[in-house]
Amino acid sequence: MDSSGISAPKRGEIVRQIGEALRAKLQLLGRLVSLEMGKILPEGIGEVQEVIDMCDYAVGLSRQLNGSIIPSERPNHMMMEVWNPLGVVGVITAFNFPCAVLGWNACIALVCGNCVVWKGAPTTPLITIAMTEIVAGVLKKNDLPGAIFTAFCGGAEIGQAIACDTRIPLVSFTGSTKVGIAVQQKVYERFGKCLLELSGNNAIIVMDDADIQLAVRSVLFAAVGTAGQRCTTCRRLLLHERIYQTVLDQLVEVYKQVKIGDPLEKGTLLGPLHTPASKENFVKGIEVIKAQGGKILTGGSVIESVGNFVQPTIVEISPSAQVVKEELFGPVLYVMKFQTLKEAIEINNSVRQGLSSSIFTRRPEVIFKWIGPHGSDCGIVNVNIPTNGAEIGGAFGGEKATGGGREAGSDSWKQYMRRATCTINYGSELPLAQGINFG
Amino acid sequence: MDSSGISAPKRGEIVRQIGEALRAKLQLLGRLVSLEMGKILPEGIGEVQEVIDMCDYAVGLSRQLNGSIIPSERPNHMMMEVWNPLGVVGVITAFNFPCAVLGWNACIALVCGNCVVWKGAPTTPLITIAMTEIVAGVLKKNDLPGAIFTAFCGGAEIGQAIACDTRIPLVSFTGSTKVGIAVQQKVYERFGKCLLELSGNNAIIVMDDADIQLAVRSVLFAAVGTAGQRCTTCRRLLLHERIYQTVLDQLVEVYKQVKIGDPLEKGTLLGPLHTPASKENFVKGIEVIKAQGGKILTGGSVIESVGNFVQPTIVEISPSAQVVKEELFGPVLYVMKFQTLKEAIEINNSVRQGLSSSIFTRRPEVIFKWIGPHGSDCGIVNVNIPTNGAEIGGAFGGEKATGGGREAGSDSWKQYMRRATCTINYGSELPLAQGINFG
Amino acid sequence: MDSSGISAPKRGEIVRQIGEALRAKLQLLGRLVSLEMGKILPEGIGEVQEVIDMCDYAVGLSRQLNGSIIPSERPNHMMMEVWNPLGVVGVITAFNFPCAVLGWNACIALVCGNCVVWKGAPTTPLITIAMTEIVAGVLKKNDLPGAIFTAFCGGAEIGQAIACDTRIPLVSFTGSTKVGIAVQQKVYERFGKCLLELSGNNAIIVMDDADIQLAVRSVLFAAVGTAGQRCTTCRRLLLHERIYQTVLDQLVEVYKQVKIGDPLEKGTLLGPLHTPASKENFVKGIEVIKAQGGKILTGGSVIESVGNFVQPTIVEISPSAQVVKEELFGPVLYVMKFQTLKEAIEINNSVRQGLSSSIFTRRPEVIFKWIGPHGSDCGIVNVNIPTNGAEIGGAFGGEKATGGGREAGSDSWKQYMRRATCTINYGSELPLAQGINFG
Amino acid sequence: MDSSGISAPKRGEIVRQIGEALRAKLQLLGRLVSLEMGKILPEGIGEVQEVIDMCDYAVGLSRQLNGSIIPSERPNHMMMEVWNPLGVVGVITAFNFPCAVLGWNACIALVCGNCVVWKGAPTTPLITIAMTEIVAGVLKKNDLPGAIFTAFCGGAEIGQAIACDTRIPLVSFTGSTKVGIAVQQKVYERFGKCLLELSGNNAIIVMDDADIQLAVRSVLFAAVGTAGQRCTTCRRLLLHERIYQTVLDQLVEVYKQVKIGDPLEKGTLLGPLHTPASKENFVKGIEVIKAQGGKILTGGSVIESVGNFVQPTIVEISPSAQVVKEELFGPVLYVMKFQTLKEAIEINNSVRQGLSSSIFTRRPEVIFKWIGPHGSDCGIVNVNIPTNGAEIGGAFGGEKATGGGREAGSDSWKQYMRRATCTINYGSELPLAQGINFG
Repeated sequence: MDSSGISAPKRGEIVRQIGEALRAKLQLLGRLVSLEMGKILPEGIGEVQEVIDMCDYAVGLSRQLNGSIIPSERPNHMMMEVWNPLGVVGVITAFNFPCAVLGWNACIALVCGNCVVWKGAPTTPLITIAMTEIVAGVLKKNDLPGAIFTAFCGGAEIGQAIACDTRIPLVSFTGSTKVGIAVQQKVYERFGKCLLELSGNNAIIVMDDADIQLAVRSVLFAAVGTAGQRCTTCRRLLLHERIYQTVLDQLVEVYKQVKIGDPLEKGTLLGPLHTPASKENFVKGIEVIKAQGGKILTGGSVIESVGNFVQPTIVEISPSAQVVKEELFGPVLYVMKFQTLKEAIEINNSVRQGLSSSIFTRRPEVIFKWIGPHGSDCGIVNVNIPTNGAEIGGAFGGEKATGGGREAGSDSWKQYMRRATCTINYGSELPLAQGINFG
Repeated sequence: MDSSGISAPKRGEIVRQIGEALRAKLQLLGRLVSLEMGKILPEGIGEVQEVIDMCDYAVGLSRQLNGSIIPSERPNHMMMEVWNPLGVVGVITAFNFPCAVLGWNACIALVCGNCVVWKGAPTTPLITIAMTEIVAGVLKKNDLPGAIFTAFCGGAEIGQAIACDTRIPLVSFTGSTKVGIAVQQKVYERFGKCLLELSGNNAIIVMDDADIQLAVRSVLFAAVGTAGQRCTTCRRLLLHERIYQTVLDQLVEVYKQVKIGDPLEKGTLLGPLHTPASKENFVKGIEVIKAQGGKILTGGSVIESVGNFVQPTIVEISPSAQVVKEELFGPVLYVMKFQTLKEAIEINNSVRQGLSSSIFTRRPEVIFKWIGPHGSDCGIVNVNIPTNGAEIGGAFGGEKATGGGREAGSDSWKQYMRRATCTINYGSELPLAQGINFG
Repeated sequence: MDSSGISAPKRGEIVRQIGEALRAKLQLLGRLVSLEMGKILPEGIGEVQEVIDMCDYAVGLSRQLNGSIIPSERPNHMMMEVWNPLGVVGVITAFNFPCAVLGWNACIALVCGNCVVWKGAPTTPLITIAMTEIVAGVLKKNDLPGAIFTAFCGGAEIGQAIACDTRIPLVSFTGSTKVGIAVQQKVYERFGKCLLELSGNNAIIVMDDADIQLAVRSVLFAAVGTAGQRCTTCRRLLLHERIYQTVLDQLVEVYKQVKIGDPLEKGTLLGPLHTPASKENFVKGIEVIKAQGGKILTGGSVIESVGNFVQPTIVEISPSAQVVKEELFGPVLYVMKFQTLKEAIEINNSVRQGLSSSIFTRRPEVIFKWIGPHGSDCGIVNVNIPTNGAEIGGAFGGEKATGGGREAGSDSWKQYMRRATCTINYGSELPLAQGINFG
Repeated sequence: MDSSGISAPKRGEIVRQIGEALRAKLQLLGRLVSLEMGKILPEGIGEVQEVIDMCDYAVGLSRQLNGSIIPSERPNHMMMEVWNPLGVVGVITAFNFPCAVLGWNACIALVCGNCVVWKGAPTTPLITIAMTEIVAGVLKKNDLPGAIFTAFCGGAEIGQAIACDTRIPLVSFTGSTKVGIAVQQKVYERFGKCLLELSGNNAIIVMDDADIQLAVRSVLFAAVGTAGQRCTTCRRLLLHERIYQTVLDQLVEVYKQVKIGDPLEKGTLLGPLHTPASKENFVKGIEVIKAQGGKILTGGSVIESVGNFVQPTIVEISPSAQVVKEELFGPVLYVMKFQTLKEAIEINNSVRQGLSSSIFTRRPEVIFKWIGPHGSDCGIVNVNIPTNGAEIGGAFGGEKATGGGREAGSDSWKQYMRRATCTINYGSELPLAQGINFG
């Protein structure tokens, strides 16, 4: 079963209809995401909107999955780069983006001519089922086999099965570096391909010439948004010594005003963590932080109530503390001081992860240094915006322990296809490359 | 030490000079390749020419390592895809192309702004030293540090060291699948990147409408060239039942006329195998072939003389024999019969390796089926030319157990660089993607 | 008034809504096209569908109007190619595609950030008004000024005004070569840009190995479809002498079965010509044909009835007859005999126009010759399909007297934008290109 | 006679050899340019270097003149965009760049598979002959017909002949807007193509936050370099009122120190104008300037000596003076004052010409506004560098009365080729685009 027999523009038309079906239920799905995952409603709706955007984008892409015709050095030869579907793409997603990550992968995988086998997070079965129902409805309406898009609600054993199945040439995995590496090993053993979106440990650098207000608002969104459970959440804040105290004071002030509560309620900025385990993890994290010399400037405690609520937390800590090198999946922000751009970039690049990063400055020489060969070593390199909130037109993903995969825009679609360098001799002679004469 | 401080076009100028220096010594270097590796002189010269071609190509590329400017959905934001050098690229090459594979990698790696650390094959130290001397001379003439290009003559311990060194973000490895997988595991453990060019097991399909003469000449070059020690060597010949006997008869006839001898001598088509171990491997292979039901149609023996000479060999065997699934690195060709295109493609795709493949036909419907989604699953998909003899303008490499890397042309250069999706906010507002409203 | 203040992806969203609004009225609009222009209903609906396809395509494009970042030879310099909107695009369309041509232009022009000023044909005001109403409705719903899309029903004086107006940097004109050249001159006088889609005179070549049935069906669609009033209509049929009589016999037979009548009626293949003037033009054309030695094989007369009906006509004539060099806008097909491919290509290329062309053959060497440097000199070069019926993913347009413009897919969008090569020096030095030392 | 029978990479090899031949004579050719044209030696050598750079660039390009394979909506159809040579390219160049402009055109035209017919300026025959000899030598060495590259020394009658010759599908013309428009008209009459590089009238804007020293040095190079006879010469200097007097004082000071004299002599910054007519034109220009209210701040006179020497001149004048709208081909700089960025951009865009432009600032919001939809309307848009001194990797050319052509890098090569949208049906059915059902 594959969708490669249907032409790419027709596959695009199917994806367009999926987008339409989602658009018709945007508010409901947004609420469901919010309800099941715990992020606030505008973020829930934004996540569904992102899937819709991906559908629209993929429709256009379905007429632009272009190969190349490359000049051949041999007369009467045509050299081409041709892109063909892989067959089946396995997509393993995480709880924090229960549908957007599926959207990034499935929209592209489908227009590229693949079938999709999706494993959602075990804790977000409702959104998995809802999305699958919607896709299934569109397939049915177009008299296409439902097997083009299959979903599973389940745990590690399903992931394991996908990783080991030789019928699935590509496994796209989003989750922790630890699990991702294990998946990768399984897939490579059977000579499959991986697309990995693993842990981040993202820093925001605020230079002394920065627009402080812009920076503070951005840090708040980047560190507290989705309760710190985005892979692009800002976890490290590097402040130039000259504006260190100013920014910190404003930030602590703003943190105290963050409205915590029901994510579906208007005005709430911080909902609960996703599970009791997440809450427990937060508690343990705070203990480690303290043990390693971290100073809690605000927050640091769980909130005694129904639900996995914790306080948004700011920690003053040394860049060399071990805990700073790891991803603590919650609203905990480490603040550090630096003196020079060079030092800030070194701290930014000193962790294993390489997903997102951001600087606040208005100096062109700093901006271009930051995005250049001696700047941030991350896959996402921002200026005057938060570490999170990517647009679909660009390629999303990170370097180093973040896994190296790229999803959504740019030429990410190439990962979902098989590249063939084809040379057709339509003449009757056999000239050889590099002018070789044989026999 | 890196070369990223020099602008890309200036790096191109250095590579141009390397090309000029090689061009001045083309004949001498070609002879050295032939002498040390054992391939015939036209192939030795052709290999050096390929490095020169790569240099010329890379010069042009040095002004075309283009990033993108992508329309942002947010006002006063500029979104870009920026490509930066990785730093240091480790290149591990094999004996069979002692300089071309270095050329593919180093030319691109250098214009991309990287330094190169090269480990040549332990059995081809002279060509490693000669190439290094030439590059070193150019660097010196331009007052550039020699560390931009470093080479090692040595064995597995050097390869191991490169694989494990965190200062080398990318390791490009050419060699067997077995060793390649081991290298890959080491590199991934430290979150590095790999570019793998591993074993091939390449088939030529001859359809009933094929130009027989063209096919026979191509099979000869593909199976006997470089004494069957190319990764793109044709190892499996699939003949349509209607032309099976005709092609086979002609081929056996041609094989008998192959001039075996000193590779430096004019007219020689088949030189020795590279080492005594290769010869021994050939002998063992023939035994296994016989044990698995293979019928030797011509050749099958070593030649008693000084040097590791063996006979070019044709074997009639079933596609299901186990030995057919593995790469036997010598001039041994397995011949099989098929009835339909579908069957031929299935046999072609039935091995773990996915490097090169070729079909001989004049029917457009067969050609386009062959290069399409239900055709060959290899990285190189040819029509009416041999499996070997790639041009540098296309991307070279294979799928499945061949490792998935791509070298030389097309957008292969991207593998030698780090991609960053950059968004610059040059306004004073903070609009969020997907229209999210936060706080 | 321009739409460049709205981000490209948001402009894409507007175009998406236009597509949705058209989709909701596909059948009705298709009928209107059929009713007002005279083409048969499936063609009328197909034309509207093409506009919808263009909308979907343009949505994806709105995130892919990519500029480039090009490596600079100067340190601390960033070189970019940036694309900006032109401002206002004038679109002048013809009666034969009263909405598709508008769609090609407007969808792209709008996502590129331009406003559109449209002049439809004087004889198709209803479809002009209907399309405009639909676009206006979408703009209004999005609180956007209606001036983003303005339409005129009128004649040459409106076209003249558009051609001369310096506020309209680009004029896209579809129509006859004669009028197009006049428009071009006016626009160039004021240093504006033109995108011209002018007359065609398209040939189909049938080789001796062709699939005759496929060829005959294709010629019928290409020569009789839209009553021969497409710019891509096949006007010249070049038959290899070996299949000349066979094809001709079948074609004459098929022509006699063409159902002529009400274009809205099911089964009709040939509706009326667009105007009484078209009919008169047909009559005059037949006279000239006869005077120049043309032999009417079938058809050749008007049909006495209400409406501008004429017979589908096949004429045997010499390639050197003068009338063959001109576009006669009706269902008249000139048939000629040739002996060699070379001769056929020469005849194909011997006219001033260079829009579309097609060959029927199954020989790869013929196919690749035909699409190569010594093949067809047209902008559209087909194999085994008619001259008409283009897909939107490719670039549509022709060479020579056809005007050289390209619409719809590929990089046609670049014509609707202004290209700027930008170099930003973010350092404090002033190095010069080419290593020049000044002062 | 055309070069399309030679494969593109082989054409690249020819161009590489031309580059080598030029490199061997760089100093001599540079001196010849300086001697015959009058520009200072570093500029003469720089100009020849630019041709060499173009050769190197074109070699790489010869393997990258890529077409596309575009997904077809029809099953068993392959859609492609194929690029073929035009045949013969006519190149008409001007005295001010007697070899660089030829280099831009010929290098690309040749690798694209065209022959070149070159008409150099009537006043620079020596460099025309020298370049032609070098190219001819390379062609001969490669046993290629000399007709691949033909040159003429002559005047308007040759240009006229090229413009009218139907065997020359593309005419690339560099010169004044007046002559360019006349050429264009002739070429379009015969349905040929034009690539125009016409007059410039380029402004530098200096903002109040600019690095004054960088700006002053840049203006000097841009306004006095090549004695103001570059098409990219800065002719208008727009100074923010806050730094107006400071910049002006420094500039007048620097102008007084400009060493005028023999262009071959070390240290000379300003050589003679090209001809007595140029000198006369300067004198007349100064008169008109004075008549229109211009105030000469420095210079303004011819220098009484052998040779056509004139003083570098700064004029304070109103942006509305008519003389400011025209290109005066000499070292005359008009200075104007502005208050806001908006006003400066309006003045920049208020002339008919649209070649080059530059701003000096360190504010990102100004930089991005300047290169955006509401910024400069020129083809070259610089920041913190002069208006002149383009790199070959970008596309060179301008908008409006500058003619709209683009030369050198980016996708400029497409102008030297013919684009064909090809669709191959390799199946046996005839599905139609847009799902149309016909007959």
